[in-house]
Amino acid sequence: MDFAPDATTRDYTERARAFLVEHVLPAEPVLDEQLAATPDDWTVRPVVLELQEKARAQGLWNLFLPGRHPGHDGAGLTNLQYAPVAEITGWSPRLAPVAFNCAAPDTGNMEVLNDFGTPAQKERWLEPLLDARIRSAFCMTEPEVASSDATNIGTRIRRDGDHFVITGRKWWSTGAMNPDAAVFIVMGKTDPDAARHRQQSMILVPRDTAGVRIVRPLSVFGYDDRDHGGHAEVAFDEVRVPADNLIAGEGDGFAIAQARLGPGRIHHCMRALGMGERALALMIERASSRQAFGRTLAEQGVVREWIAEARIQLEALRLLVLKTAWLMDTVGNKHAMTEIQAIKIAVPRAVQQIIDRAIQLHGGAGVSSDTPLAELYAGIRSLRIADGPDEVHLASLGRAQLRG
Amino acid sequence: MDFAPDATTRDYTERARAFLVEHVLPAEPVLDEQLAATPDDWTVRPVVLELQEKARAQGLWNLFLPGRHPGHDGAGLTNLQYAPVAEITGWSPRLAPVAFNCAAPDTGNMEVLNDFGTPAQKERWLEPLLDARIRSAFCMTEPEVASSDATNIGTRIRRDGDHFVITGRKWWSTGAMNPDAAVFIVMGKTDPDAARHRQQSMILVPRDTAGVRIVRPLSVFGYDDRDHGGHAEVAFDEVRVPADNLIAGEGDGFAIAQARLGPGRIHHCMRALGMGERALALMIERASSRQAFGRTLAEQGVVREWIAEARIQLEALRLLVLKTAWLMDTVGNKHAMTEIQAIKIAVPRAVQQIIDRAIQLHGGAGVSSDTPLAELYAGIRSLRIADGPDEVHLASLGRAQLRG
Amino acid sequence: MDFAPDATTRDYTERARAFLVEHVLPAEPVLDEQLAATPDDWTVRPVVLELQEKARAQGLWNLFLPGRHPGHDGAGLTNLQYAPVAEITGWSPRLAPVAFNCAAPDTGNMEVLNDFGTPAQKERWLEPLLDARIRSAFCMTEPEVASSDATNIGTRIRRDGDHFVITGRKWWSTGAMNPDAAVFIVMGKTDPDAARHRQQSMILVPRDTAGVRIVRPLSVFGYDDRDHGGHAEVAFDEVRVPADNLIAGEGDGFAIAQARLGPGRIHHCMRALGMGERALALMIERASSRQAFGRTLAEQGVVREWIAEARIQLEALRLLVLKTAWLMDTVGNKHAMTEIQAIKIAVPRAVQQIIDRAIQLHGGAGVSSDTPLAELYAGIRSLRIADGPDEVHLASLGRAQLRG
Amino acid sequence: MDFAPDATTRDYTERARAFLVEHVLPAEPVLDEQLAATPDDWTVRPVVLELQEKARAQGLWNLFLPGRHPGHDGAGLTNLQYAPVAEITGWSPRLAPVAFNCAAPDTGNMEVLNDFGTPAQKERWLEPLLDARIRSAFCMTEPEVASSDATNIGTRIRRDGDHFVITGRKWWSTGAMNPDAAVFIVMGKTDPDAARHRQQSMILVPRDTAGVRIVRPLSVFGYDDRDHGGHAEVAFDEVRVPADNLIAGEGDGFAIAQARLGPGRIHHCMRALGMGERALALMIERASSRQAFGRTLAEQGVVREWIAEARIQLEALRLLVLKTAWLMDTVGNKHAMTEIQAIKIAVPRAVQQIIDRAIQLHGGAGVSSDTPLAELYAGIRSLRIADGPDEVHLASLGRAQLRG
Repeated sequence: MDFAPDATTRDYTERARAFLVEHVLPAEPVLDEQLAATPDDWTVRPVVLELQEKARAQGLWNLFLPGRHPGHDGAGLTNLQYAPVAEITGWSPRLAPVAFNCAAPDTGNMEVLNDFGTPAQKERWLEPLLDARIRSAFCMTEPEVASSDATNIGTRIRRDGDHFVITGRKWWSTGAMNPDAAVFIVMGKTDPDAARHRQQSMILVPRDTAGVRIVRPLSVFGYDDRDHGGHAEVAFDEVRVPADNLIAGEGDGFAIAQARLGPGRIHHCMRALGMGERALALMIERASSRQAFGRTLAEQGVVREWIAEARIQLEALRLLVLKTAWLMDTVGNKHAMTEIQAIKIAVPRAVQQIIDRAIQLHGGAGVSSDTPLAELYAGIRSLRIADGPDEVHLASLGRAQLRG
Repeated sequence: MDFAPDATTRDYTERARAFLVEHVLPAEPVLDEQLAATPDDWTVRPVVLELQEKARAQGLWNLFLPGRHPGHDGAGLTNLQYAPVAEITGWSPRLAPVAFNCAAPDTGNMEVLNDFGTPAQKERWLEPLLDARIRSAFCMTEPEVASSDATNIGTRIRRDGDHFVITGRKWWSTGAMNPDAAVFIVMGKTDPDAARHRQQSMILVPRDTAGVRIVRPLSVFGYDDRDHGGHAEVAFDEVRVPADNLIAGEGDGFAIAQARLGPGRIHHCMRALGMGERALALMIERASSRQAFGRTLAEQGVVREWIAEARIQLEALRLLVLKTAWLMDTVGNKHAMTEIQAIKIAVPRAVQQIIDRAIQLHGGAGVSSDTPLAELYAGIRSLRIADGPDEVHLASLGRAQLRG
Repeated sequence: MDFAPDATTRDYTERARAFLVEHVLPAEPVLDEQLAATPDDWTVRPVVLELQEKARAQGLWNLFLPGRHPGHDGAGLTNLQYAPVAEITGWSPRLAPVAFNCAAPDTGNMEVLNDFGTPAQKERWLEPLLDARIRSAFCMTEPEVASSDATNIGTRIRRDGDHFVITGRKWWSTGAMNPDAAVFIVMGKTDPDAARHRQQSMILVPRDTAGVRIVRPLSVFGYDDRDHGGHAEVAFDEVRVPADNLIAGEGDGFAIAQARLGPGRIHHCMRALGMGERALALMIERASSRQAFGRTLAEQGVVREWIAEARIQLEALRLLVLKTAWLMDTVGNKHAMTEIQAIKIAVPRAVQQIIDRAIQLHGGAGVSSDTPLAELYAGIRSLRIADGPDEVHLASLGRAQLRG
Repeated sequence: MDFAPDATTRDYTERARAFLVEHVLPAEPVLDEQLAATPDDWTVRPVVLELQEKARAQGLWNLFLPGRHPGHDGAGLTNLQYAPVAEITGWSPRLAPVAFNCAAPDTGNMEVLNDFGTPAQKERWLEPLLDARIRSAFCMTEPEVASSDATNIGTRIRRDGDHFVITGRKWWSTGAMNPDAAVFIVMGKTDPDAARHRQQSMILVPRDTAGVRIVRPLSVFGYDDRDHGGHAEVAFDEVRVPADNLIAGEGDGFAIAQARLGPGRIHHCMRALGMGERALALMIERASSRQAFGRTLAEQGVVREWIAEARIQLEALRLLVLKTAWLMDTVGNKHAMTEIQAIKIAVPRAVQQIIDRAIQLHGGAGVSSDTPLAELYAGIRSLRIADGPDEVHLASLGRAQLRG
């Protein structure tokens, strides 16, 4: 349980921080301009491509993928090593993760292909994803049902000779509005009569397959997240793909989803800590500089308490994230289940409060686009819903405690 | 302290509710379509004009203005009578208040003109506002300073013969993006050396005066509130208006602002209760209909607690709002100061939590535009900042308790 | 829905307040001395008897009993009239309620006898209770089961000719340690096979009946509440009483309990408001007078916020209590069920926080017996458990909302 | 930053846990009996002396003292090694710490003597304390002033030839009611005109010195903590002691206090985690076994959420405590100031909520003495006041963040 950063971690962290300060933060207003100039465009903007080029040149690329991957650019970091680097990317979640090719949902999709893909699947989809030549989407959640209960999944994947035929409707397919998202990993039921967690399978669906229809973009508190390729509702109407597109075997979908979600959750939490740190930094700056009634905000009312509580929360939760990463590295994701759930619940909740208080301290600037706070808020708020609402995880963690 | 609705109140409330159900709620998707069809338009949309016509025909018009106003359409309701009507408009804050010509900031501006305007000012500006022929903005908050401290106001109103010359910068001028907002009420300092609360004055500035420049729209979370005429940053650069445009006397600005803010705050609170009721209604509907893990959400975890707590909060705070209205009607706004502050703090805070929980219960639909919840959240969250952040009011109310 | 105090209410309230200030508050240290002098005594102390004599002489007696009761000293107040009087008694809950013969559980027991008792039962037990010649206990909660679910009740009341025979074990029988508590109202099952809410009956058990055994006193935090007759665990071992001791009919126990609990709950809430007001008054005094780091506590950190929030909560919840009282008076206790549950949940919760913050502001004096705060805390904390824990009421209220 | 327990830690932890289960928990009811049998006795009870003998025989003795102490029984553990052992003692705070001779305030007093005492002072006082032959008290807090501001200290220590003369009044002198508390460490001002933090000194005052008067015991939520020697108010009236009784030099009192408080705070936090774990264990047991409305409590409402949140809080805060211990061991107490403040604020707050919820889940048993919960609550609640209220630490930590 040694959480001290080793030499590799320190090296990557320092370089990532330098990159953030030197390249990413100054690129934020540039991104805003480029987005404003092309309101109907869902592709990655030029400023992002430039950042990717610079980051890759510095070896800040595909850092999320644990273990060595010969022939790729991955750094082979452990989760514990990756954690502080990912945290730094959370300071600028619209730019830094994608700059390092470490942005969801591509990261999770690459992990799935890396862990469960056939050589042919890897060659066709993993390679270009690792190169950021294409992007991808993950189609799991459905509009009509509580998707946190996997037995509710309504999408059907029907075998038809050498093909599978997919019919269903998904939403919150992040990135799917981007026409460069060339492939979708779709979860559906191959056997509704199988055991509870053997009904589902995952399959690769190229975007341009007949029957795939992007229905509409979804917004998050008014934000369309165009820079990330948005969030799409996607209809699959008798979509036919070769049987080889299945990932692993029939009935493996739930297990793959679980395998994917562990790292996905901890990555979100790592970045969330960075979001919280940025909000705290903004809070401190504001409290020190803003005057009202003859004194700085720092000298008034609850402000110092807010700052202190933010610092305490971030310190305690960072340690819990590091312990979780260390457990995943040493005993495996399965045995880190309780800790993964714990941070999935606790980190977004705490960071949401920190950002909310930072907004309050900034007044009108806090809810507007003059600070990153309102958009950070929308992001962190959604995390408490995405991939299972807090309440499902709380109940599950509580049940586990009751059992043993 | 009799809060029971009298016959007039019951009549207006029933008619307002019927109007909401019959006309306003069905108009919501129509508004969305019209907004989507004309993304760069800041004027009132056709569907709103149609609603206004219908509402006015039914006498649901200018209900906010207390007392009788011969020659106008006003209903002459007391604050206590208006409260439940305003609450109903809160169910659909984008449409219902404006349909009844009861939307901020026009209501506050009409009150100022009604209470402090000269006959000429009334004829020129109040009449068309009561008719909804024009709209208006209120320019008080400034970007560079903590505007909750009125001594911080940087805008200057300088006498120059028969004119005043205004220079300064305002933001969060709600409605000002709408080109039909024909007049701005601007607060600035006429005498920075006067006593603390005699430095400020208010003046009428026609939109088309030379030197008035709409700098940019502001967003609230990701919403630009185009249907309300948005929120503008406005620059005043040596803007010259006749001395007759001054409202009341030099140095009266702070007092007028205070007079304006009392009713403004209670109207916000009344509507906020309606927002909370709608969120609760949506929560109940969702909890009853949505299934997960074999049971409805209502049968699981914290959901019933959330619903119960929402009901309790709304009941208690409604009574406090009614008492405040009754005090304003009977002893005057000044003597209802503590209660006005109390509801300004407590109502948005409680309703924010209710809406947030409703969002949580709706999952992805909650943060998107598929329910009104996320936009309601953005609105209520801003209320905790607008017109003085909670903390300023808490400290002030606390001081008052400590004094007496 | 007129909550304004009428002349009767104002008169009683003013006299009760004067009595509190003049007689009750000065008696608090006297009670402490008398308690310290006789540590093993559970009877009412002399100072209480003196207060009762004075209060009765002033007509401040049996105020809790709604409606006129010819021949008794009752004031015949409505719930709405009684509310502010009861609130005043909450300032000194150890002395003021009992001084006015308005203390639980005798109040509830008198109500039961008044509403459901036979003339003989009234003569034998109600008369001396109204005179405070005896005291009583209510034996409902049982140690082995969750008593908020009435079907769990384990005590059996078996018919045997002209007698009933009672066997079971009760606890939290408040007042029962006092040897002057001459009669116990005991709830038990006469027919375990009847419909869910027809299994239970209530019966009068004189303290000195064979088989009644006071097992032990219970403490609340570290307090034994000796001044109130404590809280007893009581064993009933084949206790035989005449059949005439049954209150109303067999199977009526649940209905009587419900009828008793409504007024009991609102009385608790009224007094709780007074406890909150006293804590707030102490907070204000302390914040104004205590110096640290060169300034009074009032000028630092969160103190003003705490005071403001306490004031807001007390104002809003008082209105909800008044509305509940008004509903009970006008449409009956049954139709005020939601409101009774609402205040049962909300008032103790809010007052607990106020008292807790007052403790915090008083430091060491707050947790000790140098202020009444710690003992007030113990009392209010228990209220969130007594007569159904918050969670049972929240779930029930939530279900009611979901139904309608 | 390696928090994994080493072999020594594992060994002590396992033996401490075994001792807790085998000897301490069964001794709890015995202690209650012995306390009940001798209500006016403030000395250590026989059951404690027996536990001490057993523990000492097993080498579970003086574990709190960091580093080796030749000739003593101390284990020479680091803070990091001691942490999990101390946590275990928190499961039974009335018995386990004192059984291991690791109970406050003796621990802090022994540290002061060990770090700052002269050989003569050590021989006279430290030796018998390490042997548990005597006990001691720490007299710092004063009743009249906010003692968190050390400049408020009113006690005077005046030089008079070869003696110092002490006059003042202290309270919350824990343990001082015990006649075996043979020595008091008293903080007072030797030079009120010196620099802010050089005014204070500490001096050893034997209990039997003329002028020392135990004024009265103080209670905490009704508990007198007799088993710990209670909490005394102590008057010092011209108390004359030899000049050699001064600890370190004149003006060193504040520095010694700070040195003493760091370890004291972390020890409290370690034990608090154990208190939280015990409450959680009780909550789990209750939730699994108690039935209401046809299901266990675990299957209803918010119970699972409470259990999950308790687990998450305890995990995160334990890591923060371990990090703090590690910092104290590696960079020194001074450089761990922020972390010490963080845990001083966060741990009692979280554990208080856990215990409160455990109380709620236990209903009447929770507030009574049938579970240890109410007494645990009183203890943890006081911790948020003792040694500086939360608010002082929050403001201080916030200021530190604002500075750098």
